Amino acid sequence: MRTLWLEDSKLKMVDQTLLPHEKKIIELSTVEQVAASIKTMQVRGAPAIGVAGAYGMAIAKLTGCDLKKAAALLTSTRPTAYNLFYAVDRCLKSKDPVKEAAQINTEELGRCKKIGEVGSKLINDGCKILTHCNAGALACPDYGTALAPVYHAHASGKKVHVYADETRPRLQGAKLTCFELKEHGVPFTLITDNMAAYLMKTQKIDLAIVGADRITANGDFANKIGTYSLAINASYHKVPFYVAAPFSTIDFSLTSGDQIKIEERPPDEVRIINGKPISVECNAWNPSFDVTPAKLAAGIITEKGIFKPSGLPQE
Amino acid sequence: MRTLWLEDSKLKMVDQTLLPHEKKIIELSTVEQVAASIKTMQVRGAPAIGVAGAYGMAIAKLTGCDLKKAAALLTSTRPTAYNLFYAVDRCLKSKDPVKEAAQINTEELGRCKKIGEVGSKLINDGCKILTHCNAGALACPDYGTALAPVYHAHASGKKVHVYADETRPRLQGAKLTCFELKEHGVPFTLITDNMAAYLMKTQKIDLAIVGADRITANGDFANKIGTYSLAINASYHKVPFYVAAPFSTIDFSLTSGDQIKIEERPPDEVRIINGKPISVECNAWNPSFDVTPAKLAAGIITEKGIFKPSGLPQE
Repeated sequence: MRTLWLEDSKLKMVDQTLLPHEKKIIELSTVEQVAASIKTMQVRGAPAIGVAGAYGMAIAKLTGCDLKKAAALLTSTRPTAYNLFYAVDRCLKSKDPVKEAAQINTEELGRCKKIGEVGSKLINDGCKILTHCNAGALACPDYGTALAPVYHAHASGKKVHVYADETRPRLQGAKLTCFELKEHGVPFTLITDNMAAYLMKTQKIDLAIVGADRITANGDFANKIGTYSLAINASYHKVPFYVAAPFSTIDFSLTSGDQIKIEERPPDEVRIINGKPISVECNAWNPSFDVTPAKLAAGIITEKGIFKPSGLPQE
Repeated sequence: MRTLWLEDSKLKMVDQTLLPHEKKIIELSTVEQVAASIKTMQVRGAPAIGVAGAYGMAIAKLTGCDLKKAAALLTSTRPTAYNLFYAVDRCLKSKDPVKEAAQINTEELGRCKKIGEVGSKLINDGCKILTHCNAGALACPDYGTALAPVYHAHASGKKVHVYADETRPRLQGAKLTCFELKEHGVPFTLITDNMAAYLMKTQKIDLAIVGADRITANGDFANKIGTYSLAINASYHKVPFYVAAPFSTIDFSLTSGDQIKIEERPPDEVRIINGKPISVECNAWNPSFDVTPAKLAAGIITEKGIFKPSGLPQE
């Protein structure tokens, strides 16, 4: 399931704000359009945002824009995703941003495939796996990170069952993860985020796998809001909790999760669902991510292997 | 804020399925209507359901129905709320069910007021309090259980701030708790359920208070789905976690929470919000409650005082 690609000097992508109701491919031909697609979350998920940013730089080059200004615009869209800064910076420093963007995409695809291969070793036949948000094919150019091991295990004939947190406020688990699991034919059950602990208590959940938007040198990681709560609940129930992400998600310039800047999004994302308020007019808090300490994770699955969070190989 | 009362042989109640958008008083004149109002959650919250059940028995008497059949119908509506069985049974055994129902209502009001008085001792000036679902005035004939201490503290001039979990799938926190906190003029902030852990990590939360639908002799308790997750997160962050409920919520016939039957409601409550699906057509799990072990709670606030969950006075 391809999520985004460059074709005829245009960035084509699945508009994820319309899923699961409509699968529409949009075409973006300017840097401003690419930046807007990241900001409004038509494309989301750290690896996909990185590739979108890279293709944004390619489009900047192809349309004769100032590359520095383009880079500033693209990186101003979402403050937490390290992949975005990394990919845009690589294109900015490259002599050929168009080629560099294609190279970044190819690398990302290869990494996702490899993460699937590496991570599927953790998945036995009959495994029940819990995941949060969407770190699947839709969060990447293809395959996914947290879901890549699931797809690999499923494709190799193992019986698996996924429990998908709906992931409020934006419901990416319900909207996107369920959509792509169904497309892949993987059996799954949707739950609300607050059911995860009770699920772990009453069903035998074998492992939890989530993605990451940024991992710091000590193994702390930022991921979608609710990941921290889930990791605490998994720890309480002794369910192994894994993070799956490309090695490039590790930001060695940050020593710990306390240094990660957390994006706060508009309160109305909490207060309004499907166009209708769920509460009286009031204050709502809307941090988009949270930070989970390294000690709550059993391992970090990367294309280079599975690492103990406290034992990341330093660059 | 009165939630339900008997007037002219009719049960009048705020239709809570319409809140927060409309505050409508409905009139019920048959046992079947009362049973339906409990089943469809026009009235909800263990103490309010108990009083509604009692008034249902009063209406059965007033309309010349078979009282045993009425009791069977009323108690078949929601399997988890102990108050319902207790109140209906009292009316069934009484010589005068109408008078008994009025007595149950008066007692319930007195208990809620007393819970507020007792519990407000835990609330210091400037306190930040986290709550889940709605155990407020709308869950009772008035005042509330978990929110009664908050209202008492607020009325006595203490500065408080409440964080309200939205409480998926039915969003009673967003719809009801926010509504009544605003009506009472208590400052509050709405959050999604999965933000609670990160809130405790980043803000100083002084205590969490929730209600209970059933408490067993060993201090385990059933409450709205998500309570268990919240209690684990509170324990991890050393936030004192309190349960507030009338003493009658304690079911001494059950020795532990494992014996509590948990209601499962239709999957579409998870899959559809405000009339619109949030996912592709799929399986969803929808347990309405979960069970929290006694060891995760700091205390149980009742009208008889605050008890250690492991040290409930046995009847």
